[in-house]
Amino acid sequence: MRPLFDRLTVAGVGLIGGSLALAAREAGLVREVVGVGRSAANLRVARDRGLVDRVATSSAEAVAGAGAVVLAAPVGACAALAEQFRPHVAPGTVLTDVGSVKAGLVPVLESRWNDPGAVVGAHPVAGSEAAGAAAARADLFRGRLCIVTPTTRTSPAALTAVRALWEGVGARVEEMDAAIHDEILARVSHLPHLVAYALMAAVAEARVGGRPVLGYAGSGLRDSTRVAASRAELWRDIGLANAGPLRAALGEFRAALDRLEALLAAGDASGLEQALDVAAAARRRLDGDDG
Amino acid sequence: MRPLFDRLTVAGVGLIGGSLALAAREAGLVREVVGVGRSAANLRVARDRGLVDRVATSSAEAVAGAGAVVLAAPVGACAALAEQFRPHVAPGTVLTDVGSVKAGLVPVLESRWNDPGAVVGAHPVAGSEAAGAAAARADLFRGRLCIVTPTTRTSPAALTAVRALWEGVGARVEEMDAAIHDEILARVSHLPHLVAYALMAAVAEARVGGRPVLGYAGSGLRDSTRVAASRAELWRDIGLANAGPLRAALGEFRAALDRLEALLAAGDASGLEQALDVAAAARRRLDGDDG
Repeated sequence: MRPLFDRLTVAGVGLIGGSLALAAREAGLVREVVGVGRSAANLRVARDRGLVDRVATSSAEAVAGAGAVVLAAPVGACAALAEQFRPHVAPGTVLTDVGSVKAGLVPVLESRWNDPGAVVGAHPVAGSEAAGAAAARADLFRGRLCIVTPTTRTSPAALTAVRALWEGVGARVEEMDAAIHDEILARVSHLPHLVAYALMAAVAEARVGGRPVLGYAGSGLRDSTRVAASRAELWRDIGLANAGPLRAALGEFRAALDRLEALLAAGDASGLEQALDVAAAARRRLDGDDG
Repeated sequence: MRPLFDRLTVAGVGLIGGSLALAAREAGLVREVVGVGRSAANLRVARDRGLVDRVATSSAEAVAGAGAVVLAAPVGACAALAEQFRPHVAPGTVLTDVGSVKAGLVPVLESRWNDPGAVVGAHPVAGSEAAGAAAARADLFRGRLCIVTPTTRTSPAALTAVRALWEGVGARVEEMDAAIHDEILARVSHLPHLVAYALMAAVAEARVGGRPVLGYAGSGLRDSTRVAASRAELWRDIGLANAGPLRAALGEFRAALDRLEALLAAGDASGLEQALDVAAAARRRLDGDDG
């Protein structure tokens, strides 16, 4: 089988970028992966673990001869990376990303690339609070969804190549309008993250009767706030880049919380049980989806 | 070793009651465990799994000859259970419970028991969204905290026996004032549950561009809402019985959420990153506590 790309550049060899690099190499989708990033220590881990074939130390070296460049850095860093790579890429080099925000980012990437048609926004809905090359694994995307958000400018060839990359590492690919993507992800990902950070912020320093309450945390708090261990920089960027949809989702959450609190305040046992039960049933169905 | 109790009655042989029954039997703390409860099907599972030695079908049969009675039913059902058992217990029979709310419940139990000194409130900080005898396991309390909340009326002998029961199944026991317990648990358990139910309620039926958003849920939403799969009846009772402290905790959470939203609205990248980072650091410390 001919590889999809002779050379793939991954900018940001963390959990997502590193997993994609490793999975693409193992699947024979690429002949060579070049890694580039801010942290020399992380790049060393990526090379030692065999996620990438080699590490570049300059933008020119990073993208020379690349058939595709994957931006796997925090959302807020992607535009500047595209700008840095642009003078050094060959015509037609595909530019794609893995960011959890698309509507604000993809048009900016198109405007920073020689060939806007070669830009394809992508978002693998995978990952965890783990970070860095050390956490990367080849099966991270297997059976998971990857949303790609082509625009009217996207070339069919670039779209086909990016789809093939994600399908090649085991993902299910779904095409979607970038704005729809952002509205959905605001609700199923960005909102839960913001809520988890707020929960943690609310209890982190709380004391009752001189006792730090965190000393009494059980699995309830641990599960509910697990994603709040995620890197602040990533979620700062996602929150700011998707502030509109996120604040709309936050409004919907506040309304749901207000409703539960009103039932509590009224001492309405049957109303409260019914409201909790509807939520519990939905949560159990979610587990039924994939165990 | 002489057992702590010749006969132990467990009212409500679910995850907590069933695990306590099994662990107490395996540790030789009791000669016999009698199970009683509302669901014949669940009691059958409890007997088939050997969680209890036998099942009683009446209150009189359930507590005849019992050295201690453990109420492991939803908080809202405990007072009535004590009332039902009271005419049939021998003098000095210990009454204890496992509820996540103590200040509202323990004085009520004292008022419903022949010997108020024999009542000892207890709360093992363990459990999960799993429910029923099928989910019970002997190691559920091993290394976990059990908070006991003696009052000025509690007899030293009853307190010693209840402490020995929990220590015998592997728990660390800490004594605490019931009101302090409720303020702490409101923050580390009841609040995260209410928030998880509200998150799930907010997104359960949401659609964007005709698509149900739950179809796009990743591990972020799943982790954050896992506890919302818990039985609605349990959390209805806990919420209502601890409404005051829970609403206070909810106020603290809302303030934390408001602060994050204000930073988002202001586009304050460094302020937002700092706030998220404080929460993330606290969450990582929580994992450091016990992995």
